[in-house]
Amino acid sequence: MDLKVVAFTGGVGGAKLADGLAQVLPPESLSVVVNTSDDFMHFGLKISPDLDTVLYTLAGISNPDTGWGRIDETWQFMETIKQLGGPTWFNLGDRDLAIHAERTRRLESGESLSAITADMCAALGVRVKVLPMTDYPVHTIVETRDGELEFQRYFVEFKAEPVVQRFRFVGSDNAEPAPGVTEAIKDADLVIFCPSNPWVSLDPILSIAGIQQALQEKAILGVSPIIGGKAIKGPAAYMFEQAGIQPSAAAVAEHYQRQLRYFVIDRLDEDLQESIEAMGIEVLVTNTLMLNRHDRQRLAREIVDFVHNSTLKEGAP
Amino acid sequence: MDLKVVAFTGGVGGAKLADGLAQVLPPESLSVVVNTSDDFMHFGLKISPDLDTVLYTLAGISNPDTGWGRIDETWQFMETIKQLGGPTWFNLGDRDLAIHAERTRRLESGESLSAITADMCAALGVRVKVLPMTDYPVHTIVETRDGELEFQRYFVEFKAEPVVQRFRFVGSDNAEPAPGVTEAIKDADLVIFCPSNPWVSLDPILSIAGIQQALQEKAILGVSPIIGGKAIKGPAAYMFEQAGIQPSAAAVAEHYQRQLRYFVIDRLDEDLQESIEAMGIEVLVTNTLMLNRHDRQRLAREIVDFVHNSTLKEGAP
Repeated sequence: MDLKVVAFTGGVGGAKLADGLAQVLPPESLSVVVNTSDDFMHFGLKISPDLDTVLYTLAGISNPDTGWGRIDETWQFMETIKQLGGPTWFNLGDRDLAIHAERTRRLESGESLSAITADMCAALGVRVKVLPMTDYPVHTIVETRDGELEFQRYFVEFKAEPVVQRFRFVGSDNAEPAPGVTEAIKDADLVIFCPSNPWVSLDPILSIAGIQQALQEKAILGVSPIIGGKAIKGPAAYMFEQAGIQPSAAAVAEHYQRQLRYFVIDRLDEDLQESIEAMGIEVLVTNTLMLNRHDRQRLAREIVDFVHNSTLKEGAP
Repeated sequence: MDLKVVAFTGGVGGAKLADGLAQVLPPESLSVVVNTSDDFMHFGLKISPDLDTVLYTLAGISNPDTGWGRIDETWQFMETIKQLGGPTWFNLGDRDLAIHAERTRRLESGESLSAITADMCAALGVRVKVLPMTDYPVHTIVETRDGELEFQRYFVEFKAEPVVQRFRFVGSDNAEPAPGVTEAIKDADLVIFCPSNPWVSLDPILSIAGIQQALQEKAILGVSPIIGGKAIKGPAAYMFEQAGIQPSAAAVAEHYQRQLRYFVIDRLDEDLQESIEAMGIEVLVTNTLMLNRHDRQRLAREIVDFVHNSTLKEGAP
């Protein structure tokens, strides 16, 4: 089956599906476009949390217990930071630090994030194409009742507890897609919105005009990050509530409604199938929880088969 | 004995004598002024090699085998940098990294190097006052036959092999001494030029006009970093040769000749005593090689006693 896929993703959940797709599709048929609006500076280092999670996951070296960082990590750096009275709210493993430091070094020498990411894929043995959404600086600012917060401080330091009024993606107005992103989308048979947080992982990607433009007329499939009204990981459900919306797979479909052709929900949410189909969206109901690498592969294969069969049904090529 | 001392030092050898003085003098009677012209940015982090060596040495956590870095160090970061194809010419241990990262974070938040250094002393249990020579940026540029090099690249990456024409301390014209430096010097009974490299460790400190001014009329004691025509560690002897000067303890005394009242040479160089005394300098001949902490303490005590007796002899208070 020769389906060309571009997957849009944030960190943990989305990275798992990207890994499933990488197990199912030949490397040249998959491009992964990653949110960079959570990127921030810490200790003078440029940290790209979603890019790193995607790289580590695709390289098979992510930490399955934490959802972030690497397996077989050591913590000498963090312990010493603590001893020096430094900030410990963002955990940085000794090995993990190297990717931030080397990225920072190369950015400061004038290289682009996308070029650096390509080299890091090669160094870590990742064969599918991983693309930052943009090489331009875009920053998620969280407007809360108590004032504005940079995303990582809101998310990690304040544990996503402040009440959100709005997310702003500062810089996205001027941001161009990274080299290769629009080409990959135009070349794709299918764009997948991975089961990432719609508000803070996928919306930033979709806020870039050049990416929206490339998506025109494209077949888009979304995978709900919400199962049984709850987010598998992270504050997505809570964010829907704060926006005055009952969190559910249907609410996610509605969030993207003008764009989706297909949507994947969990068996637990089977009762929502009809209302989502009423939005003009084809629905696949299956097990969407990915507890291990096999689950990722199975879900990816089901998605590819589903789209393939649907396309055959429609008589499209 | 109530002798107030300010010690000027670079890294390894000087740090050892500073540690000896810290063992002999009460903490309030010793200030250590450290060269910062070797400081540089690497991986986005501000690295202060001499300050770190002095801190680690005074805290009793320096690595006795390498002369730089910490004991009980791990190397996960460096190994991963290598895997990512990054530069490995400057070794950064996992624990050592923390001091660079925390310093960088605090400098970027607007704090001064001297304030940060004071806090790090406290965190590491160092009770004597450690002062960077200046909070201003000063950089040693090495003019070689093959062009200009930043100091660390010349020193570490190129192993001090390029033929030197001149050292420039860029920024020293505008640099003010760090807060506390001139006060400590004015308050001191004795200023010690530790056995550090005259060309690239002590000359940068002496290149700051405010420090030179404070040194007027001060009793200064130098300790030769050269024994038997050779530097204990580092390229000091080679630098004398490149300047067309036979490297020797006498050449070091001559390097500082207008400033020294006292000079300490090794027993191996006893034959140089007369020619150094002919420069109007009182000479102490003793064992200057510091192989362990006891050697450092002994040399420091001999220096303090020597100056004390000399002062009594002269009838000064």
